[in-house]
Amino acid sequence: MPHPSNPTSYAAAGVNLDAADEALSRIKAAVVSTYTPGVLRGLGSFGGQFVLPSGYREPVLVASSDGVGTKTRLGMALGQPRTLGSDLVNHCINDILVQGAKPLFFLDYVASARLDPELISELVGGVADACVASGVALLGGETAEMPGVYVEGEVDLVGTIVGIVERSAIIDGTGIREGDILLALESGGLQTNGFSLARALAAGHEGEPLNLSEGLSPSLGDALMAPHRAFEQALRPAIDAGLVQGMAHITGGGLPGNVPRTLPEGLGARLEVGSWPVPMVFDRLQALGNVSDEEMRRVFNMGVGMVVVTRPSDVDAMRDLCPEPLHTIGVVESGDGVRFDSSS
Amino acid sequence: MPHPSNPTSYAAAGVNLDAADEALSRIKAAVVSTYTPGVLRGLGSFGGQFVLPSGYREPVLVASSDGVGTKTRLGMALGQPRTLGSDLVNHCINDILVQGAKPLFFLDYVASARLDPELISELVGGVADACVASGVALLGGETAEMPGVYVEGEVDLVGTIVGIVERSAIIDGTGIREGDILLALESGGLQTNGFSLARALAAGHEGEPLNLSEGLSPSLGDALMAPHRAFEQALRPAIDAGLVQGMAHITGGGLPGNVPRTLPEGLGARLEVGSWPVPMVFDRLQALGNVSDEEMRRVFNMGVGMVVVTRPSDVDAMRDLCPEPLHTIGVVESGDGVRFDSSS
Repeated sequence: MPHPSNPTSYAAAGVNLDAADEALSRIKAAVVSTYTPGVLRGLGSFGGQFVLPSGYREPVLVASSDGVGTKTRLGMALGQPRTLGSDLVNHCINDILVQGAKPLFFLDYVASARLDPELISELVGGVADACVASGVALLGGETAEMPGVYVEGEVDLVGTIVGIVERSAIIDGTGIREGDILLALESGGLQTNGFSLARALAAGHEGEPLNLSEGLSPSLGDALMAPHRAFEQALRPAIDAGLVQGMAHITGGGLPGNVPRTLPEGLGARLEVGSWPVPMVFDRLQALGNVSDEEMRRVFNMGVGMVVVTRPSDVDAMRDLCPEPLHTIGVVESGDGVRFDSSS
Repeated sequence: MPHPSNPTSYAAAGVNLDAADEALSRIKAAVVSTYTPGVLRGLGSFGGQFVLPSGYREPVLVASSDGVGTKTRLGMALGQPRTLGSDLVNHCINDILVQGAKPLFFLDYVASARLDPELISELVGGVADACVASGVALLGGETAEMPGVYVEGEVDLVGTIVGIVERSAIIDGTGIREGDILLALESGGLQTNGFSLARALAAGHEGEPLNLSEGLSPSLGDALMAPHRAFEQALRPAIDAGLVQGMAHITGGGLPGNVPRTLPEGLGARLEVGSWPVPMVFDRLQALGNVSDEEMRRVFNMGVGMVVVTRPSDVDAMRDLCPEPLHTIGVVESGDGVRFDSSS
């Protein structure tokens, strides 16, 4: 069924109707709060309608679907489902941003063994939070109750984003050449990747302070739940100024798995270990499991949320146009793949 | 991860690599077989790229996300996952068709407790089959392995469709008036709704012949798995000719739940029981559980896949332009909701 807009479905599921009513109002308000001028018809219709923005000569739609993976399990266990909703949207925004696309609208799917209006309200609320923050309309959604398919108490959260880019402005990395510079934007944490390993390593330690030598430190669990960051707002000015040659969203596979996805055949990257800040959560996870550096880099983003490739002569202009730190982490060289230098 | 385009992920999951390789080739071939001229970039990129068709003055995108619900459980139990992929696409096509939108592209999401390349190949193959049949590009997809979230042996399948319609050609039912005629296209079975009740009623009888008095009849299980039909091809000529005032895709909630979604305030529908063929599978389910007529109509589509509302003077032209039977099942009248007449 679509995002529940009346309480009868909950009545059938044996849910307290007053509580359900309140949750439904919150869901509806959250969805409507995301509406941008393009939304013609949203909540309650078979399909959402969005008026294509004008001014494009050869508009290309860019679309991506994703889930948040097993971060859902930690989010449910720690009672922080709202973060998962934002994680999902921000992950999707970055996946189309790397091609230069501006996000237009988002659709979500929430499923679990039983309907829980409070939980759905939190998840959809998190989705809406992130949509508002990046100017994306939440155009549609679906909620499914699937006993016997989902483990009781668990949830899956899937989203699809659709964005737009002028065909001549598509970023595909083909202009990248030897000597170009790799700049990193900070992830601040795991984003949504590596949670199967992270949960195994952290099991039983979630409530401990992240920094064991400092009592007021946030917990390891909270550090693991740090939200996936979206980079649309931070990078849009530089993209529109034509300074970006290529981008890589650092997801599953880490830097070695994702940086090569934006590099042309015959080019690789040399990264300087120590040139960007690695959040403490990674040190803690590594220590808990005695994990090798190589595996850490293959599974986790190690603090890098997005890599941007630019000309050496454009680095200063990039920094002027970007409101957050851009760490110079490496250089494009002939070859392939990613080499980590620890010369410092 | 995206649709697996290399076997390393399967190696990590302990899957036989030769078998995985073969399945991966099939998945890739199936996806590529759906590509329409609009596809600029598909498989393997962070997001799929689709060139917007030209010729629209004020193009409106129509998007919808959906799952196939607990039909997945029956499909898995009966070893017929391929149907589920087609079900998903066709359901989504119909959801945007009711607004007049022509489907452009589709994205799918497959998740289960463990990766099974054979299963994914069947599911994505079914998705691709239905995409090809309706001229829809399979632009992207995501596969997730989520142990602990999904029950072992079960799967969820989620899809998103994006279509396009000229703003002035959007069908929203506002032109419908008293005396307009309701025409029905046949569903041929349950489509993808009512499976929680259907599975409960059919439990233990799936292997029995549908028609108990006829040995060569298909099984009840096979009848339940009849694929969700898409009506884009059948209705496009009539839609483009401007003959369609409104449409209702008969999904969860049946005729009484969905027909009113296309009727303007103050109008209802009177339907003539017996004016369309009810497939035997519904009689059989009703008999197995001694279910009331009212509940049957509320849970199941009762053989109607799509309702089209047209002027009485346009019925003959509709029939000329539609390659399949259009049953005259009722009339629009003042009031609200749906009334079933059994006068015949």
